[in-house]
Amino acid sequence: MARIEPDFELKTPSGDDRARRVCNTCGFVDYVNPKIVAGSVTESADGRILMCKRAIEPRKGFWTLPAGFMEEGESVADAAKREAREEACAQLELIDLLAVYSIPRISQVQMFYRARLADPSIAAGPESLEVALYHWDEIPFDDLAFPSVRWALEDWRARRGRTGEPPALRTQGEDFAPREDL
Amino acid sequence: MARIEPDFELKTPSGDDRARRVCNTCGFVDYVNPKIVAGSVTESADGRILMCKRAIEPRKGFWTLPAGFMEEGESVADAAKREAREEACAQLELIDLLAVYSIPRISQVQMFYRARLADPSIAAGPESLEVALYHWDEIPFDDLAFPSVRWALEDWRARRGRTGEPPALRTQGEDFAPREDL
Repeated sequence: MARIEPDFELKTPSGDDRARRVCNTCGFVDYVNPKIVAGSVTESADGRILMCKRAIEPRKGFWTLPAGFMEEGESVADAAKREAREEACAQLELIDLLAVYSIPRISQVQMFYRARLADPSIAAGPESLEVALYHWDEIPFDDLAFPSVRWALEDWRARRGRTGEPPALRTQGEDFAPREDL
Repeated sequence: MARIEPDFELKTPSGDDRARRVCNTCGFVDYVNPKIVAGSVTESADGRILMCKRAIEPRKGFWTLPAGFMEEGESVADAAKREAREEACAQLELIDLLAVYSIPRISQVQMFYRARLADPSIAAGPESLEVALYHWDEIPFDDLAFPSVRWALEDWRARRGRTGEPPALRTQGEDFAPREDL
């Protein structure tokens, strides 16, 4: 038997104002909206930052902050804590919302919290080759997985030692550079 | 000819860790993630708040703030401005991020900005029966469309006259009441 497969075509559903992917096989309309990535810049008790070396594509072997796609039925805060648990076996205590980054090119909104380790133990989860705690000067800036990892680290450093401030709000421009974006 | 229709069943795709909707007709995996609603609490020059009476379900005939689902390829800020343009023919100047609400029950993250009208003209768009500018005491609190409309109004009032503060971060609990949630 032939394997059944979706066969999508861009069409504007009736009553809608933009083209959506509609399946010619089954009629399903694939309404796609931006996805939320929830993550954290997490400090150890001695001020080092928790980072993970990716075990999966994209950007396998490069360094990232614990972060990932928010799932249905959870809050942004719970998603950030779950990602740190899955990727670094880390228990977080969230401090505040550090940053909201819009990345229109890939239709993502990334939200990073500041956090501290609620327990000193960390270990590589299935999506990480290794995990590490880095002092600022030790961070492998030449081997970061994504531009937003650098932004989050820089925004964390700019706010170091202060609380009660608004998060950094940025949108990635066409040139891949972030711009301040209220 | 019989109309083709999707036939979804909950199954866990290989390599995944949770059940997703998979179509028995075409094999499509419907990865669903939380959706972002972008909106605003917008002031006129004399301090009144822009509100819209809904022309569409859900909650047709009830009052809301300009807000709606973020679309692909835009920033959160652009989505908030677009929704005000579509629903109230209003041009906004954003001030700051007022609030981030997680609503796990319906898998939404709602982000409200504070804004002011860049131009005094407003008018009902196709999704609004009417639009209005209300002083605080005139707001139809008994006829609000959604709980988060009340939260945004209350968070706006709590921050009135101040800037440079972090947004309100709330998660709707099982009892529908919002709780502070870092």
